[in-house]
Amino acid sequence: MTVVADKPELLTEAFQNIQSDVDSAFDAFLPVPQDSRARLVEAMRYAAIGAGKRVRPLLVVATADLFGVNRSAAVNAGCAVEAIHAYSLIHDDLPCMDDDELRHGKPTVHRAFDEATAVLAGDCLHALAFDILTQPDTSTDPFVRAELVGALAKASGHDGMAGGQMMDIVAGEQDYDLRQVTRLQQLKTGALLAASVEMGAVLGRVPPEGRTQLRAYARDIGLSFQIADDLLDVEGDEGKAGKALRKDEAQGKATFVTLMGVDAARRQAGMLVEQAADHLASHGDDARLLIELARFIVKRDH
Amino acid sequence: MTVVADKPELLTEAFQNIQSDVDSAFDAFLPVPQDSRARLVEAMRYAAIGAGKRVRPLLVVATADLFGVNRSAAVNAGCAVEAIHAYSLIHDDLPCMDDDELRHGKPTVHRAFDEATAVLAGDCLHALAFDILTQPDTSTDPFVRAELVGALAKASGHDGMAGGQMMDIVAGEQDYDLRQVTRLQQLKTGALLAASVEMGAVLGRVPPEGRTQLRAYARDIGLSFQIADDLLDVEGDEGKAGKALRKDEAQGKATFVTLMGVDAARRQAGMLVEQAADHLASHGDDARLLIELARFIVKRDH
Repeated sequence: MTVVADKPELLTEAFQNIQSDVDSAFDAFLPVPQDSRARLVEAMRYAAIGAGKRVRPLLVVATADLFGVNRSAAVNAGCAVEAIHAYSLIHDDLPCMDDDELRHGKPTVHRAFDEATAVLAGDCLHALAFDILTQPDTSTDPFVRAELVGALAKASGHDGMAGGQMMDIVAGEQDYDLRQVTRLQQLKTGALLAASVEMGAVLGRVPPEGRTQLRAYARDIGLSFQIADDLLDVEGDEGKAGKALRKDEAQGKATFVTLMGVDAARRQAGMLVEQAADHLASHGDDARLLIELARFIVKRDH
Repeated sequence: MTVVADKPELLTEAFQNIQSDVDSAFDAFLPVPQDSRARLVEAMRYAAIGAGKRVRPLLVVATADLFGVNRSAAVNAGCAVEAIHAYSLIHDDLPCMDDDELRHGKPTVHRAFDEATAVLAGDCLHALAFDILTQPDTSTDPFVRAELVGALAKASGHDGMAGGQMMDIVAGEQDYDLRQVTRLQQLKTGALLAASVEMGAVLGRVPPEGRTQLRAYARDIGLSFQIADDLLDVEGDEGKAGKALRKDEAQGKATFVTLMGVDAARRQAGMLVEQAADHLASHGDDARLLIELARFIVKRDH
């Protein structure tokens, strides 16, 4: 067991800082053009600025911090992951996908703008992610830039996030067992969380053979994140969540909660978080932010 | 004027070779997984394999050829551009965008599969493009890989292809003049054609200051490509085009043809192609494929 003490105030401050830094960075990346693309960029800004907890950027920054990486470089890489996350939410919310009306407590992009603009704004945030990663501000070392792009492209495509989303779409027609639900979630949610940690390590010039413990941490928090999401879907408050809940049950989808029950799911999530913390033992007190973040992931109410 | 003679048989052979190489490469990039993502990857393969003329990959390969680049590296980069082009067609064809039923003479992806699968297949081809560019097979030099990614991300996002698509969506409501239509097309079509030439030069390790003539060539063929498209929209055969035509007029959109008239548009396209050829004069006979390709762009009947 890790000996690092609970320090929730550390996490609160870290969230405030990353939310402010990510918002400022997107504001700078996305000036509104003086032509008929204005509506498109406004939609990108609506989705990317002032929304979301910024768990993924914080993972990038907190991992990069272990290795003394320049903060603005890590914030840039965090924005790239967040741009991918934001595009995926826009597309997942579309009428032909989950048909959601609310996200982060405000109308979804296709409701606030229109469907065509939502599709394009998602596509443009997708491209922006890779544009950001190839800027010298993110890293002056092209090897690092290329490795960041590779990690993010792999984690977001058909062998990652979007592949998991496809498995989720057909979940209602299929009787997934615990192994298949775990696989689905490793792709849909876990891949991008793992990429966040990986990219922090890439920025820190940690060679692949030195990333074993960080990857184990990322795998455990990815799974506990999704178990916590499934618990929130059953027990959460729609007002706090800022989106519709209890959709899995209505669609007859297997989740960790339907397969394991509420109590076992909660125990499993708690166990995974402590296991995640143990993987970082060699970093001692330096890892306290990553450990607080892991604990937050299962305790959060939204 | 260029002294290079017409050699259409050179172009025919080059198209056959690139079509075969691109199909083989996508087949290798996209093995169908043995789980519920199979439908997603089938949709990606449906859109990416055996469809389209492969103008963009041929531009990459023919440009790279000027500098003695290994063919399989150039084919990989060409596949990345084509993956972006293919994703954009899937999304442009969606009911909320152009609502098209036919593409390359067969049902569009959302018709052959469904809308949700089409959105995701587009997103995954988008990610695949950047995944391909970061593979060591594309270049062993990370600087080249990072520069390829940067060029493609910039050309496809809100300052490139997708930005042009947004301008096109609102074109029906706006009275674009020739300057605005030119700007729209430089983004919507020109940016990706220019990126193809640029990426060939990047693979050939041509420094930015050595790319002036190639960029001028790319700009001219980009514009002539779109003028030819507007002419085809008015005069073309839907069977040969494999898609619906005469949509611009129905939507009341300004095009090069509505603004200039058929004859002036055709003269302008021809003039631009010869100007494009002149930009390559210093390459002598080595540039004959790029010149034939420019001529094909205005003469094609689909």
